[in-house]
Amino acid sequence: MRTLRLDLAYEGTSFRGFAPQPGERTIGGVLEATLERVLGEPVRVTPGGRTDSGVHACGQVVSFATSNRMECSTLRRALNALVGDEILVTAVAEATETFDARRSARGRRYRYSIWNSPDRTIRERNWTTHIASPLDIDAMNEACGTLVGKHDFIAFQTHRAQDDVEKGTERTVRSASWERDLNEACLVRFDIEADGFLRHMVRTIVGSSILVGLGKERSTQLAFMLESRDRRDAGPTAPACGLTLVEVTY
Amino acid sequence: MRTLRLDLAYEGTSFRGFAPQPGERTIGGVLEATLERVLGEPVRVTPGGRTDSGVHACGQVVSFATSNRMECSTLRRALNALVGDEILVTAVAEATETFDARRSARGRRYRYSIWNSPDRTIRERNWTTHIASPLDIDAMNEACGTLVGKHDFIAFQTHRAQDDVEKGTERTVRSASWERDLNEACLVRFDIEADGFLRHMVRTIVGSSILVGLGKERSTQLAFMLESRDRRDAGPTAPACGLTLVEVTY
Repeated sequence: MRTLRLDLAYEGTSFRGFAPQPGERTIGGVLEATLERVLGEPVRVTPGGRTDSGVHACGQVVSFATSNRMECSTLRRALNALVGDEILVTAVAEATETFDARRSARGRRYRYSIWNSPDRTIRERNWTTHIASPLDIDAMNEACGTLVGKHDFIAFQTHRAQDDVEKGTERTVRSASWERDLNEACLVRFDIEADGFLRHMVRTIVGSSILVGLGKERSTQLAFMLESRDRRDAGPTAPACGLTLVEVTY
Repeated sequence: MRTLRLDLAYEGTSFRGFAPQPGERTIGGVLEATLERVLGEPVRVTPGGRTDSGVHACGQVVSFATSNRMECSTLRRALNALVGDEILVTAVAEATETFDARRSARGRRYRYSIWNSPDRTIRERNWTTHIASPLDIDAMNEACGTLVGKHDFIAFQTHRAQDDVEKGTERTVRSASWERDLNEACLVRFDIEADGFLRHMVRTIVGSSILVGLGKERSTQLAFMLESRDRRDAGPTAPACGLTLVEVTY
């Protein structure tokens, strides 16, 4: 047996998230079926970062074990020819036997994109959330600055995932910042990096930040949520389509 | 009766072109049905530029006559709320009675986009054609430079449209040039402006240019086609998904 690492990009729009589920079209399900076709044996993949239903990735990492000795470059070509046009394998590499995309990960980076314009967007519609009223980026940055560091993020969690029971609800956010694209002023992005994230944590941070950006909450609201530890203080969970897993670090 | 001008953007991927056809989902069909719903009377729209099945637009213009006196801004909002997320009405304006989006047009500008990289693209897959081997942009520009001016483009026409019977096959190309995107080196674009285009003319020019860019034809090939007036000298018609109608000028 050898352990392989795949790097993946995908558009999550028409998938029911990553985890293989009977009767559902999922990223993991399509990937495992394609791997089985190419490798001639069933394979179980482990993802490095969570991508819920409708969430995209440009830097997902998965690991799996196989007894097949196919060359990495051949495997990559075969997978990309068969996996469909919503998924792209950007790299295939040999990993150490103990490599586990989830357990070995040191951090995850997500990006959330907003189309901030009175008009909808055609081209970016599957990759952004549309907010028609102008957003105050400075206020949103002020609000999110308080998230950096080690905190209990329980107020930003909607459902408790198995993962979170194991690991508790403390996470260390390394950076979190909003910016407006220099070339395309309608495009507003949030980049956040942490050792890990609770279920729906990024989307709840974004939903709460949007209320701040629209002037419906004060910029101290996110700090208040960290303190209150109460989900009822949070804004709505922002839609999945704006979220992309950008990188898993090891 | 008053004449109105609509400016439109759309993703053509899942439409059978513009012209309303019974039993087919077309841009014009969806637009006319939405206009009828909003205006309370049947409406016939005329497009300014041709967009075949799968072709996109960011600057299509249509004209139509209506007896409804609804304000332009109200009409625009109502249309955008009902027309679906693949079509966006970017402007609604009062036009002179004689305005006809097709007949009044002085020129059309199209853009063709290629994803030029060994890897496919996820994000741009509906807006580009994938060419894995490197393209020689200088050779493609050399080839297309000869198209500028007034020429008989009959060799670049695949099917004869009704329009072309009326107008003949001479057209004046005002500019035609290839460039590689400065920020995204995988993205190669062709911009072409003319008083009008024959059916499949842009896609045949692109298909022929790609053969030049890949070194499979000489850069004199397009000049040769203009002279021979023979479609059999042309390269393949490039796929519809890379083509966007950018502007109709009046």
